Amino acid sequence: MHNQLVDIEAIKQLKYRYLRNLDLRQWEDFAECFVPDATGAYDGREFTDRDSLVAFMRENMTDGLISMHHAHHPEIEVSGDEATGTWYLHDKVMVPEFEYLLEGAAFYSDTYVRTPAGWRIKRTGYRRTFEMSWSSKDLPSLRIKNQRLEG
Amino acid sequence: MHNQLVDIEAIKQLKYRYLRNLDLRQWEDFAECFVPDATGAYDGREFTDRDSLVAFMRENMTDGLISMHHAHHPEIEVSGDEATGTWYLHDKVMVPEFEYLLEGAAFYSDTYVRTPAGWRIKRTGYRRTFEMSWSSKDLPSLRIKNQRLEG
Amino acid sequence: MHNQLVDIEAIKQLKYRYLRNLDLRQWEDFAECFVPDATGAYDGREFTDRDSLVAFMRENMTDGLISMHHAHHPEIEVSGDEATGTWYLHDKVMVPEFEYLLEGAAFYSDTYVRTPAGWRIKRTGYRRTFEMSWSSKDLPSLRIKNQRLEG
Repeated sequence: MHNQLVDIEAIKQLKYRYLRNLDLRQWEDFAECFVPDATGAYDGREFTDRDSLVAFMRENMTDGLISMHHAHHPEIEVSGDEATGTWYLHDKVMVPEFEYLLEGAAFYSDTYVRTPAGWRIKRTGYRRTFEMSWSSKDLPSLRIKNQRLEG
Repeated sequence: MHNQLVDIEAIKQLKYRYLRNLDLRQWEDFAECFVPDATGAYDGREFTDRDSLVAFMRENMTDGLISMHHAHHPEIEVSGDEATGTWYLHDKVMVPEFEYLLEGAAFYSDTYVRTPAGWRIKRTGYRRTFEMSWSSKDLPSLRIKNQRLEG
Repeated sequence: MHNQLVDIEAIKQLKYRYLRNLDLRQWEDFAECFVPDATGAYDGREFTDRDSLVAFMRENMTDGLISMHHAHHPEIEVSGDEATGTWYLHDKVMVPEFEYLLEGAAFYSDTYVRTPAGWRIKRTGYRRTFEMSWSSKDLPSLRIKNQRLEG
């Protein structure tokens, strides 16, 4: 079980690195989190390999879109060189140009695989529990600073 | 201390399972997280055994109510077959039918007990730091998808 | 690596204690989380020792200000008696008297040092990814309970 704890900690840090690189638009480090044949399924949107998943994110997570992806509640089980993980996502998206705001939650079901370079994501995907969106036209006083860019 | 880490990880996963089953309305698995004589105290609302706590949740967490319960910042201390845990809750509730929105935070103080089947919740409860509620009438553009049901 | 897990868990609990004491305004326990020569850098606001950092927080985190500081996604690396940590902050501030609401996120870059009394913060600081603020005048139905005080 002690070795499992080492693997569990490594898999948590893998997930955090994946989401940090997503929200910071660091696409090479983002891609490094996956094995090449990784698949994705985000509430109906499917990807059959890493390259198409990364390309989609790179294209859609534009500079004018602010994102916050927080993965909570890791329930990770390791079995040899494979592992599964359930996580509880809380995410927010803001697109000031389009006065668009979104917030939601979801449960991730991931699988991971041990490689010579460390644990990698083999399959990731989530099913939402809720999603809500609204326009900042309803909040005339709202001011949003996109500080990743202005920093 | 190494054995303590195994227990701490098991108790974290117990807490995550408890909240996952709460938000997904999986009441049998939810009940399994507690010992039968477990008690609860949620900011004044008291429960003196597991059955009454589960019955209350089952009755009040209706399909039309969307909930998100995230427990952060585990500070867990294990002492033999008992353990204590402090957590920092962030929760949201949405009831579209009543145009009702709520968000809050709280500090949990839990105790856990080791049983032949694994760690279980012996006592749970929290004290809020803040709670705010508002009506979606103030946000005419708001659209909420209750995707646990629609999925 | 097993000893590293003990250190990583201790550093996580240090961070959680630091933020719990911040949000609960427990300044002596808050100060205890730092070494005396600790430095801070919160998106441009710099502190060169523990006393000035604590004094600033004590002065600015008034009773009428409600705060929620949640640190997620710990990526902690231990090297002997020093350690580094990356975290993903989600914070909210509410000042009902001034109808002021704020929400943001940031990446922390911390360093920690092992002392005879346990791990302590040596340097903390973050860079925001976004920050948004608005007035509760835009939400006439909003009711906020400052339950840390009313409890």
